[in-house]
Amino acid sequence: MRATAIYGPRDIRLDTVPDPVIKEPTDAVVRVVAACICGSDLWAYRGVATRQPGQRIGHEFVGVVEETGAAVGTVKTGDFVITPFVWADGTCAYCADGLYTSCPEGGFWGEPGSDGGQGEAVRVPYADATLVVVPGGEPDPAKIPALLALSDVMATGHHAALAAGARPGATVAVVGDGAVGLCGVLAAHRLGAERIIALGRNPARTAIATSFGATDIVGERGEEAVTAVRELTNGFGAHAVLECVGTQQSLDTAIAIARDGGGVGFVGVPHEVTTVDIGDMFGRNVALGGGVAPARKYADELLRDVLGGTLDPSPVFDVTMPLSGVAAGYAAMDDRSALKVLLRP
Amino acid sequence: MRATAIYGPRDIRLDTVPDPVIKEPTDAVVRVVAACICGSDLWAYRGVATRQPGQRIGHEFVGVVEETGAAVGTVKTGDFVITPFVWADGTCAYCADGLYTSCPEGGFWGEPGSDGGQGEAVRVPYADATLVVVPGGEPDPAKIPALLALSDVMATGHHAALAAGARPGATVAVVGDGAVGLCGVLAAHRLGAERIIALGRNPARTAIATSFGATDIVGERGEEAVTAVRELTNGFGAHAVLECVGTQQSLDTAIAIARDGGGVGFVGVPHEVTTVDIGDMFGRNVALGGGVAPARKYADELLRDVLGGTLDPSPVFDVTMPLSGVAAGYAAMDDRSALKVLLRP
Repeated sequence: MRATAIYGPRDIRLDTVPDPVIKEPTDAVVRVVAACICGSDLWAYRGVATRQPGQRIGHEFVGVVEETGAAVGTVKTGDFVITPFVWADGTCAYCADGLYTSCPEGGFWGEPGSDGGQGEAVRVPYADATLVVVPGGEPDPAKIPALLALSDVMATGHHAALAAGARPGATVAVVGDGAVGLCGVLAAHRLGAERIIALGRNPARTAIATSFGATDIVGERGEEAVTAVRELTNGFGAHAVLECVGTQQSLDTAIAIARDGGGVGFVGVPHEVTTVDIGDMFGRNVALGGGVAPARKYADELLRDVLGGTLDPSPVFDVTMPLSGVAAGYAAMDDRSALKVLLRP
Repeated sequence: MRATAIYGPRDIRLDTVPDPVIKEPTDAVVRVVAACICGSDLWAYRGVATRQPGQRIGHEFVGVVEETGAAVGTVKTGDFVITPFVWADGTCAYCADGLYTSCPEGGFWGEPGSDGGQGEAVRVPYADATLVVVPGGEPDPAKIPALLALSDVMATGHHAALAAGARPGATVAVVGDGAVGLCGVLAAHRLGAERIIALGRNPARTAIATSFGATDIVGERGEEAVTAVRELTNGFGAHAVLECVGTQQSLDTAIAIARDGGGVGFVGVPHEVTTVDIGDMFGRNVALGGGVAPARKYADELLRDVLGGTLDPSPVFDVTMPLSGVAAGYAAMDDRSALKVLLRP
């Protein structure tokens, strides 16, 4: 089969590799129907995060179960499934907490020895625990992008919103206009936030933010963004701030625009972040929570809303390409000409 | 009257100063019945925090209202009052949130231009909002230490416990064996924690921790403390960690001993803290909250329990001195021969 691998900074290739097979009785093999490229993949693409040459890549995909191991019980051949961006055994104490991302038997698609999502098929460990079966069989093709978003970005935006404390009546601010930030806007809106301030300046992205429920757009960055958000909030800042970038500046901005007593939910994978202003957090009682999102925990709830038609994160996919275009897809996301690229194997 | 002032590192003097008078119609003058020395006062004593020479000091006191301004309505001459360690106007948006520490009209006892608590009397701004009247007039003298603890350390321990997420059934760890840390143990116990691990090695202090509800004592520090707490918790760490010191090592330890998905409530005033391990917090979903405690917010609830006999933080006061002994009191707390010194003007 064909699968995407990364050989070094800006060196993405579609390799021919052996088809995945069942290795453990708890495995399933999933044929990928749709996958996508994540903003976090760009850290590897840009060489900021290190990968082994030839390592598989891609952690967001939906597909159809082709084969299951002898110990797989609830997932069946032919099921249409969403695959959260980590696998987990479903039986440990952390899985019982819903914190699937801390499962000691868990792993991340594309880590050495595993398949990545940007390929034609994937061996899925702990299939019963990992895979989210979409009820009703193969879904309406128009729903596939929204379902694919549940594998990571929509779940991650929801995690940020919860960690920040988004709630009915709250003023929320979202730092980051990538797909996760936009899903954060949607999640905050879904949770009942009264006012949602999206930070961004790309017109296509801010238009999506507005369609997702943003009430205000702030185009400034850094200190000027802090001033702008404070002006919009009578000097107070936002009750809940979603940090969806992962840089020092974005985290600093997020903390600075939080209202005293408020919270920052951070889900941007931290890169080159060396500090937080702990004295400011202390004096103003600003909390910092979040982290890698346990997408599996939120999948059932979000899936219900997607299937019910009340939640549609699909506008974050602005480009669709065949899998053969994956290298061009990375380049387009890297230069920000694409927001999020959906790949069809 | 006599009032304590700080002239430089380790230079504490009992000065003769003018008696406080009503300056604003919202003021009251309170005659101090009992005051105390705080661990955070030691930062100034040691020269780590800067003070103006001759600046008043002390922010924890209880006493009797001697005089009220024309606009003071609910507080009356003769009332016995607890004074939270900041004053606040009671009318702003932050006071409405219960976040009295962020009141823009608020202030901290001993800041330039204000009286400190370690003196014979104090001018109290916004008396109606600031002072907590103890019902029933002058209390049983045996209750005074416990009431005094509500002005800061017990409220601060409670704030740490809430921020960390202490709750029924949780495993809690407390970093810091000072009065705040011990009150944190008591607060976690009051909130229903099932297991409370207190980090400390001073036998007098660990004995208080045990009497306050600690189920385990860890005498190690740094990496060894992390190992010890993880061994006690099957490798998981504590659901809720109270950081009650304010140094880089204590914060690092607190984050490291938190269970994945858990929380750290930090109330130790940060000094020389330059960073947190944001990558570890992200990967393990460990949240950091807390800050300067809004003692006024918690006063009614905690006061009810003190008066009802179900809450008694008074054992944190191991030394009682006349106000004239204040310099010796600082020295005793500095060399850790005293845990917390109560002063009687």
